Amino acid sequence: MSEQQQPRIGIIGTGAIGGFYGLMLARAGFEVHFLLRSEYDAVSRNGLRVNSTEHGELLLPEVHAWQDAAQMPQCDWVLVGAKTTSNADLAPLINQVAAPDGKVVLLQNGFAVEEQLRPLLQQNLHLLGGLCFICVHRSAPGVIEHQAQGGVNLGYHSGPVSKEEGYVIAQQGAALFQLAGLASKAMQHLEEARWQKLVWNIPYNGLSVLLNSNTAELMANPSSRALIADLMTEVIAASTACGYPLPEQLVQGMLKVTEAMPAYLPSMHHDYSLQRPMELQAIYQAPLDAAQAAGCAMPKVSMLLQTLEYLSA
Amino acid sequence: MSEQQQPRIGIIGTGAIGGFYGLMLARAGFEVHFLLRSEYDAVSRNGLRVNSTEHGELLLPEVHAWQDAAQMPQCDWVLVGAKTTSNADLAPLINQVAAPDGKVVLLQNGFAVEEQLRPLLQQNLHLLGGLCFICVHRSAPGVIEHQAQGGVNLGYHSGPVSKEEGYVIAQQGAALFQLAGLASKAMQHLEEARWQKLVWNIPYNGLSVLLNSNTAELMANPSSRALIADLMTEVIAASTACGYPLPEQLVQGMLKVTEAMPAYLPSMHHDYSLQRPMELQAIYQAPLDAAQAAGCAMPKVSMLLQTLEYLSA
Repeated sequence: MSEQQQPRIGIIGTGAIGGFYGLMLARAGFEVHFLLRSEYDAVSRNGLRVNSTEHGELLLPEVHAWQDAAQMPQCDWVLVGAKTTSNADLAPLINQVAAPDGKVVLLQNGFAVEEQLRPLLQQNLHLLGGLCFICVHRSAPGVIEHQAQGGVNLGYHSGPVSKEEGYVIAQQGAALFQLAGLASKAMQHLEEARWQKLVWNIPYNGLSVLLNSNTAELMANPSSRALIADLMTEVIAASTACGYPLPEQLVQGMLKVTEAMPAYLPSMHHDYSLQRPMELQAIYQAPLDAAQAAGCAMPKVSMLLQTLEYLSA
Repeated sequence: MSEQQQPRIGIIGTGAIGGFYGLMLARAGFEVHFLLRSEYDAVSRNGLRVNSTEHGELLLPEVHAWQDAAQMPQCDWVLVGAKTTSNADLAPLINQVAAPDGKVVLLQNGFAVEEQLRPLLQQNLHLLGGLCFICVHRSAPGVIEHQAQGGVNLGYHSGPVSKEEGYVIAQQGAALFQLAGLASKAMQHLEEARWQKLVWNIPYNGLSVLLNSNTAELMANPSSRALIADLMTEVIAASTACGYPLPEQLVQGMLKVTEAMPAYLPSMHHDYSLQRPMELQAIYQAPLDAAQAAGCAMPKVSMLLQTLEYLSA
């Protein structure tokens, strides 16, 4: 770490993602502060728990839990695990919690989420995106089920330094996660990393809702499997049209990775089941807009969005 | 009528379509014979009933009801109201019921249904297709709810006469329906008529299943309405690519017609709800194959089929 030996870490949005990574970083010895709302009482009383198929039962008994961002100590790294749908509301909290020259990492899926948040953030803050490759969901207040994986790829988006210096900051962020025992690397191009993640998110998130099915069910049927491959192919073509060429073999690779995963319900399925807003803007509309601006149609992705919009109305 | 003053009519598949048209023709004075299976007892006992928003309550108390095709009198016109999914099984019954030189009319949706049945029919039989523009469903054994419309457009497919003589036979068929008080006309090109009907059937049948919604619900939401228009546009492009150009204004026209209809659940929704096979081959796969052979992709139609195949597995 450049500025200090032990950076202080703040977690905004202590759901499955924020809770898992915050707990792992705290267990690695970092000072981690959690901003909580509805789960404040449960977490203050019982701590944070991760039931992991890989790491066993992990408990963080004493949690630096906060209800008010204004009272939190200023954090060198602020990890945002909340849904993209709440970013606009979170911006003032992020500005409060982040130290001057702090690094804000959006551990979020989708496209153009940094562009949306950037104008709302203080100019001195560094903004990064983090792509989480993880199967995780929240099962009760303060309790997180970790089914598989856990890697994080970080890319620098914008801030008061050059692109090259930003890459160094992304590497520092990756080092934090590595110290917590997690696979992590810095990405040269955040946008390319976001497109790559969308190749997985676009088919599985939406189809899990539309067809009310988990990944194993979707992979076992030849028609849905073919549809997943078609959607992935459209995303790869769109990424390529936008200047970030992705290899077509990525389709078969992602299908194989998903088949090796346990049966998994993506986060959008949980959002829909619990009548929370789905991340349609970040995961579907923004990539469709970018593709269209590059002259590339994604008809099946467009249809998936149309059906999800209908279901969410 | 050319051969005889009062042609005898046989109905195979006395569901909503067969029952409605058979009852209307019987009430117009024609001798109509109904082949029945599970509904034989109810119809023999109580007759056939149509509850029509347009015509009121119509009862046919005395029904020529048959359980065995071999015992039925030979019919000059055989109207097939069964689902396309059972055509192969019905072919031997059609051959038994139809008089020599009889006319067989498939009152069915979809594409290439005549091509599928033709090799199974006796060569001396005339085969016609009938496109029904009607909102109708069966509510109980022998009871049919008629919500709107009722027109039938007939086209000659194949048989022992020339194309020109076939068109005359289609006109004779249309005259039967006209005598029963129904709008009906002969079509020069059956294939074009089938494509035109698909412009409606492809979006509404599949989406009613996929989104578990009736036509009014699908029309009220801007996203599903846009998707319906997209699907219609793909079908029109495919028909055009196959040599049957349809005007693009058909989209707005069909949307308006559908908005003027009562809230309607297409037959595929009933089939899915009752765990009967859906007509995926006739309504989706056959048109997709024809379009692909003509070099035309229908990506959203293809995706609709993929999702329906998943749901029907």
